[in-house]
Formats: sequence, structure tokens, C-alpha cells
Amino acid sequence: MDFVASHILSVTQFERVDIDSVFSVADRMEPYAHRRRVTRVLEGAILGNMFFEPSTRTRVSFGCAFNLLGGEVRETSEIKASAIAKGESFYDTARVLSGYSDIIVMRHELAGSVAEFAEASRVPVVNGGDGANEHPSQALLDLYTIRKELMGRSKGIDRLRIALVGDLRYGRAVHSLCKLLTLYEDIHFTLISPPELQLPENYVQEMQQRGHEVTISDQLESSIGHADILYLTRTQEERFPSQEEADRYRGLFRMNQTIYTEFCEPNTVIMHPLPRDSRGDAGELDNDLNENPNLAIFRQTDNGVLIRMALFALILDVVDKVDSHSREVSWNINRRF
Amino acid sequence: MDFVASHILSVTQFERVDIDSVFSVADRMEPYAHRRRVTRVLEGAILGNMFFEPSTRTRVSFGCAFNLLGGEVRETSEIKASAIAKGESFYDTARVLSGYSDIIVMRHELAGSVAEFAEASRVPVVNGGDGANEHPSQALLDLYTIRKELMGRSKGIDRLRIALVGDLRYGRAVHSLCKLLTLYEDIHFTLISPPELQLPENYVQEMQQRGHEVTISDQLESSIGHADILYLTRTQEERFPSQEEADRYRGLFRMNQTIYTEFCEPNTVIMHPLPRDSRGDAGELDNDLNENPNLAIFRQTDNGVLIRMALFALILDVVDKVDSHSREVSWNINRRF
Amino acid sequence: MDFVASHILSVTQFERVDIDSVFSVADRMEPYAHRRRVTRVLEGAILGNMFFEPSTRTRVSFGCAFNLLGGEVRETSEIKASAIAKGESFYDTARVLSGYSDIIVMRHELAGSVAEFAEASRVPVVNGGDGANEHPSQALLDLYTIRKELMGRSKGIDRLRIALVGDLRYGRAVHSLCKLLTLYEDIHFTLISPPELQLPENYVQEMQQRGHEVTISDQLESSIGHADILYLTRTQEERFPSQEEADRYRGLFRMNQTIYTEFCEPNTVIMHPLPRDSRGDAGELDNDLNENPNLAIFRQTDNGVLIRMALFALILDVVDKVDSHSREVSWNINRRF
Repeated sequence: MDFVASHILSVTQFERVDIDSVFSVADRMEPYAHRRRVTRVLEGAILGNMFFEPSTRTRVSFGCAFNLLGGEVRETSEIKASAIAKGESFYDTARVLSGYSDIIVMRHELAGSVAEFAEASRVPVVNGGDGANEHPSQALLDLYTIRKELMGRSKGIDRLRIALVGDLRYGRAVHSLCKLLTLYEDIHFTLISPPELQLPENYVQEMQQRGHEVTISDQLESSIGHADILYLTRTQEERFPSQEEADRYRGLFRMNQTIYTEFCEPNTVIMHPLPRDSRGDAGELDNDLNENPNLAIFRQTDNGVLIRMALFALILDVVDKVDSHSREVSWNINRRF
Repeated sequence: MDFVASHILSVTQFERVDIDSVFSVADRMEPYAHRRRVTRVLEGAILGNMFFEPSTRTRVSFGCAFNLLGGEVRETSEIKASAIAKGESFYDTARVLSGYSDIIVMRHELAGSVAEFAEASRVPVVNGGDGANEHPSQALLDLYTIRKELMGRSKGIDRLRIALVGDLRYGRAVHSLCKLLTLYEDIHFTLISPPELQLPENYVQEMQQRGHEVTISDQLESSIGHADILYLTRTQEERFPSQEEADRYRGLFRMNQTIYTEFCEPNTVIMHPLPRDSRGDAGELDNDLNENPNLAIFRQTDNGVLIRMALFALILDVVDKVDSHSREVSWNINRRF
Repeated sequence: MDFVASHILSVTQFERVDIDSVFSVADRMEPYAHRRRVTRVLEGAILGNMFFEPSTRTRVSFGCAFNLLGGEVRETSEIKASAIAKGESFYDTARVLSGYSDIIVMRHELAGSVAEFAEASRVPVVNGGDGANEHPSQALLDLYTIRKELMGRSKGIDRLRIALVGDLRYGRAVHSLCKLLTLYEDIHFTLISPPELQLPENYVQEMQQRGHEVTISDQLESSIGHADILYLTRTQEERFPSQEEADRYRGLFRMNQTIYTEFCEPNTVIMHPLPRDSRGDAGELDNDLNENPNLAIFRQTDNGVLIRMALFALILDVVDKVDSHSREVSWNINRRF
């Protein structure tokens, strides 16, 4: 895949070699994201950060990634005031907005909307989430996190043992991560969910056809013993027909320090696409794990910045100029933790 | 008119020579808007982009124009949370906000609000639309588009033949464009609308007093044969007393490739202030014209960035410094179309 | 207090010497805020301007202050779309967002929320207002204004005579200002309010314990004769149990030019934390005082930018680099007033 000037719409665009490219550029972004140096390589470039479905953290993460490369961000955070709400087509919106910026990130609740938008856009478009369909930068940051966490243990993604827990039916993050993982070798997937919220059959079939091992379970404790990675999810309440139906699955799988100690191998990495529901009855991932060094959930969101910087640098073809446009940091960077 | 440090509130501020100034500066902004070069002339300057009535595209267009000159943008996109909603006067809002930025763009649904705000502001104010009243940068970009489109045909704005179609009563864009056009010579206006939505009489009188030819019609097909420019509009539904009344005019005038081919001269330019309603029953400007090279609607919005850059450069008096603060573009600018 | 990398959560963090530091840095920010020079000292730094409770002017003021130092701003302006609304804890929100920016300003309607957020944040956090609790930069800008206004009269804050008028029970700005003032010597506080809206008893006790003089009154005209500073407030309607109850106090204390002339000493400075309610029946501060040179309300908001620049410069430890990263202004800075 040639990243230069291309759209990023779906994880299906990526082969292993493409993922390797993104990850290797992401690694090179660390000094800038961690503030050991500042780069101004995109000074003068403009990102159109078009969130027609609200999402504070994903929007801010993309915006900060662009700022960290030296570019400017113009943005919108909801659809209400937009021309789309007055009956404008994605074609028109894309033709207009792509005259304003050098690259666009778009999020919209309608599956397929971003691809339709990208077809008419005159600048590259990155899918920031199109409803139940795709959110490719989330899948890439999840996989990048898995790679980084296991690297410290001298393991790679091949032969990974991963347990995916919770709402596997509606969870877009899980679907996209599974698609990427099938590109690797000998993965052991353990799919833990209530029967009604199982991973759709086509994902399971593709896993098996590619030679991966798949175990399906509706019991958490007995199924997580051999996992390298425990990938927990919240119930995607907004995708359910009714709140009542969503509530039936609330608090069904609970992970906390006691369960972790009893049932997991030492050093099992805990991941979650966030936000986690911290209200008492949810319990999908208890706060008593916050000090557990294997809790990787905030390293995940940190990695999101690196992945998004890498995508921008690849698409705008500045990877090899990032360092030459860099300089020392002028302010105090003592982080508190 | 002296642009330096002045407010831009109304098209009535502009004489022909002023319009020429804006257009000539807009021409000089093209290398920056089209990313052949980057300028940082306004590095350190701040635009207060104060949209108390939401409008994603106009807000983003102004913001990008300021970013393209190297400046920063702070903004608001709605009135709900503003002090105005708590009973604060425009005087107070202006005194406060004008202490924060170097120049302000303001939009508010109330006619006259921006002028009232400007009177109290300590920095220059550009009217980004005050209800049914004025939206001067829209009129300037429309006229600039007309000039550019006809230039390719060795025609100027004098002796232009323009057909204005649709809701001519409530369309702010049409009113302001008409005011500007009357400054030129021997225009032939063809005003096509339902009788209830005709252009207000005072505009027609001014056109005639200045020696322009005016034809009034309620038939589209028979009236567009000799137009250089076909300027279509959507019904300003939000200005009607009721949705029911607005709906009576929905789909009344339809323009599509078949009608264009049969009734227009070849190369008649099609314009529209956007957004166009692309839902099936509206049909004011059919998608089958999207590939017609005479469809200028997206060149219009692109020109909006040039016009807004020109206004900022004139008001902040940096026109002659834009090039000397410029440099090469560091990223890939291969646009896809 | 060591400002470097520290949170600013409450006025109780400040001793007199700390306030002196902030004010002395604020003084040094004037050339940049008044556009005599531009500094780029924070070029490449990112402020996370997280307003989970809307407040256009405070948000824009913080954002502009950061821009004036050369930094970038990523922001949110409401809670609706945030993960907090989906049950995410402040701990999680802080861990995530603090991976995106170099410093965070946070506002949230819940008292104590910002401190809870700061505890989990990996970057310094400035309290932009946490409900009825604290808004430290407002108190600092008020005190800075008092100092500046009196300086022209060769007076300092010690031995100040200040009349505080209106809703002293719920007014967060008044509470924080009183706390700061008690750090000085021999202040004479005149507290003018309806009996039901008196300053909470603990504030009065602390004033008296520290040797200040306190006069309590429910009459405006007879109590303001010897004040250096008249600090008026609006009724905090949103903090009352019902609108009906809030309305009982509407228009109770009126200040206008006639009352000022008759009852105040010449040159009594008028302050107000804004917004003031300019609808007819409120009358807390009449527009006929707008041209009175002792009306300091817009100098207050201007000073807010200086104070916020000072806080950012102190926390990020760039105070001594601001000038060395500066240059001339490239655009026209003729303000109109």
C-alpha cells in the first residue's frame, strides 16, 4: 500500500508490511509525543477535524497528533449545525470542506459515510469512526499496544494468545482488531461473551480459515488462564435496540484484582478500548486494578497519539523530514507521574 | 475606503475600486490557498471566530483563511453557553472579547447585531452573517467567482447577463450580490421566482435607476436562454413563518442536465450559495450536473477562502508582507482531483 | 510555593509572596498582550482547554493567553459528548487527556472535580472553575486589577477599603477574592447584601481573626461612601433552588451614574466579575456608567489574559525565556479605542 496522499478508511487496506510501516514510524514519533524534542514539519498545514458524531477524546487525540507535528487544526464537534443536517449530500460536504484543509479526519454515525465522503474529497481522508462499521486508527493502536507490551517479554504478535471479553457482537473495536490479528500467524483467540453477544460468525470463520485457533466461551474465570492479552470491552449500549436490553448484560463479566490474581497468569496484559464505565454496577474493569503495572489501558490511549502522528506523517509524506525540522523543547516537561 | 483597521459590516461600504482591491489581493492569495507556498505573515496574530449562530462551513472557511496566513484561531460555535444568553449586551460582549484577539469575525442571527458589536469593539470586526441582513464576504466571493469564470471567456462583469432563480425575497446572498452588481455597467438581471418570493421592490428600483435592465419572470426554462450566469438558491426555509408555507415552494424550480442542455446557452455558468438540498423532492440543482464543467459551485467555496484571506490581509495591513514571509511547502500536496 | 509543574486548584495555595510573583510576571506580559511584541516561547506546546461546563469567555481567555505565548490549544466546550457522561471516572478522564497535552485547564460544574482530576493527571492542571467552589484565576485577576487601579493613586492593597455588593452567599468570585484579601493588612470590608444572601460566616470570622474591619449592611447608598473599590456582583441565579427565589433579589441593588455621583467618593473604582445583566429590570450596573473612567470592568477582563499568561509561564517555567523568544509584530495593531 502506498500511503502518500491515500485515504485510510478500513483495516482491510492493510497488509502485514503496511502495519509494520505504520508501527515503525510510530516508534520514531515517541521523542515528539514524549516531549523530548519538538518538530515543526507540518507548520502551515491544516487538518480538518470533522466530527459529525461527537467524541471528545478521539477528536482531541487526532488534533493533538497534528499539533505535535507542527500543523494547525480546524474542527467541528457535532452534526447539528452542519449543512448535512439541512439535506446536503456527503458529496457536496466533501467537495466544499476539502477546499479548506490539507487532510481531513471524519467521524459520522452512519456506516459507509466516510468512504462516500472520501470519494468526493480532494484531500486525503482518515476514517475517525463511521458508526458500527470501522475505526481503523483504534485497531492499529490496539495492535501497536499488544506489540509493545509483548516486546518487553520477548514475544511478537505471532503465536499470541488473546482473550476478548464482553460485547463481541456490536464492538467495532473488537471486530477491527480481529481482522488485523488474522494477518498474523497461529493466534489463539478466546472469545468470551454471552451467547447473544458472540462475535459474528464471519469473523470466526475467517480466523479458522487462516489457521488460527478459536475457543468460544461464556465463562470469564475459567477461560482466561493462558492469555497473554485480556481485551475487555464495555457493552455498546448505544447500538442496542433498547436500554432495557442493554442493561441485561450490565455487570455480567467483572474483572478486578482478586479475579486477576486467582485466574490469570502473572503479567497478563489488560486492555480496554475505553471509556470504561466506573459506576458501581458495571464493574467491567475495577478501579482496584489501577495500580497494577499490567493494566495497559492508558498506554493504549498514549499509543493512539503515536499511531495518528504516524498516519499523518505517512499520508503527507514527511516521515523523513520530521527530525530535520526538530528542535529542543523550551518549556519544563517534568510530568508528575 | 481605507481597509486598514476597519470593520467590514456591509456590502454598501464597497465602491468598485474597493472591490477591485479585494479581488486583486485575493488573486495574490492563490499560491498559498493552493499550497504552492506557505506564508507565516500573521504568525502570532489571533482571530476571534465568534459564531453565535452555528454555521460549520463559514466558520471553518474563515478559520482556515486565517491559518493560511499563519495566524491562530480561537472560536465559539453557538450562543447557548454565551453570556449573551444570560442577558449581556452586545456592548459588553464586544468590550470583553475584543481584549482577547487581534480581529473578530462575528455571526449572530439578529439583524444589526454585528454592527452594534463592532461599535464597541476595540479591534476590527468582520460580519460573518447577521440574520436576514448581511453576509458581505459571501457577496464578494460570489462576485469574484463571476469575474473569474467570465475571465476565461474574455468577458468582465460589465454587461453581464445574470439569471437569479428561486427564493429572491428572503435570500440574503442574492440581496447582497445584487447590491454589488448594481455598481457595474449595463447588467441584465433576469429575476425568476414565484410571485410571492420576488426580489423586494427597492432592489429592483435601484437596479433600474442605475440603468440596468431587469426582467421579472416566474418561468425557469423560458427565461434562462441568454444568461452568462445562472445563480440558483435554495428556499430559506428558516426565514418562513411556517414549514408548511416553505414547503409550498419546495421543488418549484428544478435544474438538471436535461434542462440545461435544452434551454441554456453552452457554457452558461451555474452558481449556488450552498448548501443545496440533495434530498429527492428538492431538485433545485440536480446531482447529474456534478460533472458539468460549468458547475462553479465548489469553485465558489474555494474562492471564499481567497476572499477571506484578502480581507484579513487588507484589514491587518500585511498585503505587501505576505510573500516576504513565505517559504516552500514541506509536505506532499498531491490533491486527488 | 514552587509554581513549576504544579497544579493551580485553589486560592488557598497562595501566600502573599506567591501573589507577588504572579503579579510581577503578569506585568511583564503586557507588551505581548498589548501587541507591542510577539513571543513564541511556547511554540510546539499544547494546552488542553477542557471546559466540561460551558463558558465562552473564560475558555477563550485561557486559550488566547496560551496562543499569546506561542502555544497551540485543543479544547472541548461541553460535557454532553464526553466519556464522563457515559460513566467514566475523573481518574480515567485525567489519565487519558493528560497524555495529549502539556498542561490542562479544566472546568466542571461539580465542586471538587478539578482537584480529583488533577490528582490523576500526568500534566499540570489549572482550575478553570469547579462549580460553587473555586475559580482561582478570577480571584487573582480581580486582585491584580485592584492593585493596578490603586497604583495610579499611590495606594497598595494594604489598608484597602472595599465594598462588596449583591449576592455574597453564592458568588464564588467574591469568596475567593475575600480569601486572597485577608492575606493583606488592615482591609476594611463593607459587605452589602440582602440578609439571606450574606457572606457565609466562616469568611467573616477569618477576616476578623486576621485583624480586618468588617461592616455588614443591607443598604447600598449609605454604605459606599468611603470605598476605594466597589465590587458589584450579579445574582448567581443558577445556584438558587428555583428561578422564583432568584427573582426576589433581581434589581435589589442598583448602581448608576446618579447614585455614583451622589454617594461615592470621586474616583471610587467600580468592578464586576461579569457578565452583567443588561436587561432593563436587573440594573445591577447601569450602562450610563460605561463612559465613567472609574469603571474598571473591561480592564478586569483584559487583566485576566495577563494573569493567565503569567500562570502558564510560571508553571511551564519559561518566564525568563519569554523575551528572548520575541520579535516585532508584523501586522497593523491600531486598535480603534
